[in-house]
Amino acid sequence: MKKKLKKINAAILIIGNEILSGRTQDKNVSLISNWLNSKCGISVNEVRIIPDNEKIIVENIMILSKKFNYVFTTGGIGPTHDDITAKSISKAFNVKYEFHKEAYAILEKYYGKKKFNEGRKKMSKMPKGSKLIYNPSSAAPGFIIKNVISLPGVPSILMSMIENCKRYLIKGLEIHSKTLNIYTVESNISKQLENIQKKYKQSVDIGSYPFFRLGKIGVSIVTRSNSTSKLKNVSRDLIKLIKKKKIEILKI
Amino acid sequence: MKKKLKKINAAILIIGNEILSGRTQDKNVSLISNWLNSKCGISVNEVRIIPDNEKIIVENIMILSKKFNYVFTTGGIGPTHDDITAKSISKAFNVKYEFHKEAYAILEKYYGKKKFNEGRKKMSKMPKGSKLIYNPSSAAPGFIIKNVISLPGVPSILMSMIENCKRYLIKGLEIHSKTLNIYTVESNISKQLENIQKKYKQSVDIGSYPFFRLGKIGVSIVTRSNSTSKLKNVSRDLIKLIKKKKIEILKI
Repeated sequence: MKKKLKKINAAILIIGNEILSGRTQDKNVSLISNWLNSKCGISVNEVRIIPDNEKIIVENIMILSKKFNYVFTTGGIGPTHDDITAKSISKAFNVKYEFHKEAYAILEKYYGKKKFNEGRKKMSKMPKGSKLIYNPSSAAPGFIIKNVISLPGVPSILMSMIENCKRYLIKGLEIHSKTLNIYTVESNISKQLENIQKKYKQSVDIGSYPFFRLGKIGVSIVTRSNSTSKLKNVSRDLIKLIKKKKIEILKI
Repeated sequence: MKKKLKKINAAILIIGNEILSGRTQDKNVSLISNWLNSKCGISVNEVRIIPDNEKIIVENIMILSKKFNYVFTTGGIGPTHDDITAKSISKAFNVKYEFHKEAYAILEKYYGKKKFNEGRKKMSKMPKGSKLIYNPSSAAPGFIIKNVISLPGVPSILMSMIENCKRYLIKGLEIHSKTLNIYTVESNISKQLENIQKKYKQSVDIGSYPFFRLGKIGVSIVTRSNSTSKLKNVSRDLIKLIKKKKIEILKI
């Protein structure tokens, strides 16, 4: 029997003072969200960026893990004093924070016994009961405990690991998306767009985003839906509107 | 009498499906946070990214406006159906959502009476009692109501407006920051860094961030504090540690 797919959602919790202070530009939200959307049919419904503070991490893990199907954390699983994500998640779930045998063995092998110092050992401490998310690029694994998946903050390392999360995720309904780029201003079509959105209220999400390209003003109309046929219907309505208004479509 | 400066904090609320879905990479968090830090002495303590959904916007405005000195919202103040920020903030504060006379006049003048259509008129609807944040690049103003400041989502427009927020903000203690880039791995200094952080627990925040540069691995040690003298002391301790470990400092 084929299982019927459901809508599955997720939150992303970015942990790190360097993102909050503006020093580092986050890239992980779009990386994770695009991957979840396209590969797993999972929508990201909320993102929070919070400081490296145990109390705040614990509080957010407790709230988000109840509210969403999955929570992805990034950052704070390295070897230094400000890496407190694993410890905080242990507290949130009231489980022991202890050495994970397999993670310990992986890291010991990677660094060699002599160079396996305290900081590196720390990277194998996790909430009791965690399963590992393997890291092909720099060995130190992420982990999943309950519905919370912890990944590192460095985008290139995160991306090398993300496929390894898949086996733990329930696949949701695929989300299809179509973008129409047109040369007009938003207010020229806002009323009609609103009517089209009303018509497909339950099934299609329509977004309108202005852009500037080679000195001309345009609008990207992005439609998203679980149903390809509904998406086609919306596209047909949009093309009708665009022709009627004699608006130029940008071919990319 | 000189007023004693206090710590002032803020939250950023990014409103927009396009950021959550990963389609658009957010740039506003680092823009706003860097500006608040350097120009106003205000720290961003939390960021949330949420969808264009009235109930969710209302809920988040109510929570964040109580929790932080200021809340900056971005996105959702344009002319289309998915632009519901101003309406939602009105609901959160239980005030009327109505045409702002001055905003209406600005936009009518900018577009000309004939081209001032429904969508454009909508951009002058705001929570009753709002003050305007003028927009030198595309006329449509942002607004401040109570401790919530609403700005547009397009980063270049946002940046053109942000200086106009300053008159409404209480200046906080200036936050100073110093970065040391060194060629080593985090775990080589993690124990000593932790001790230095403990020594300056109350006054300096120390972050450690790995980087890769021209094939070499390094660590950026970022120190942040309201006190320049404490920052100097920490730097002295760090330099001592780096010399003792014979670590190379990267000059940028």
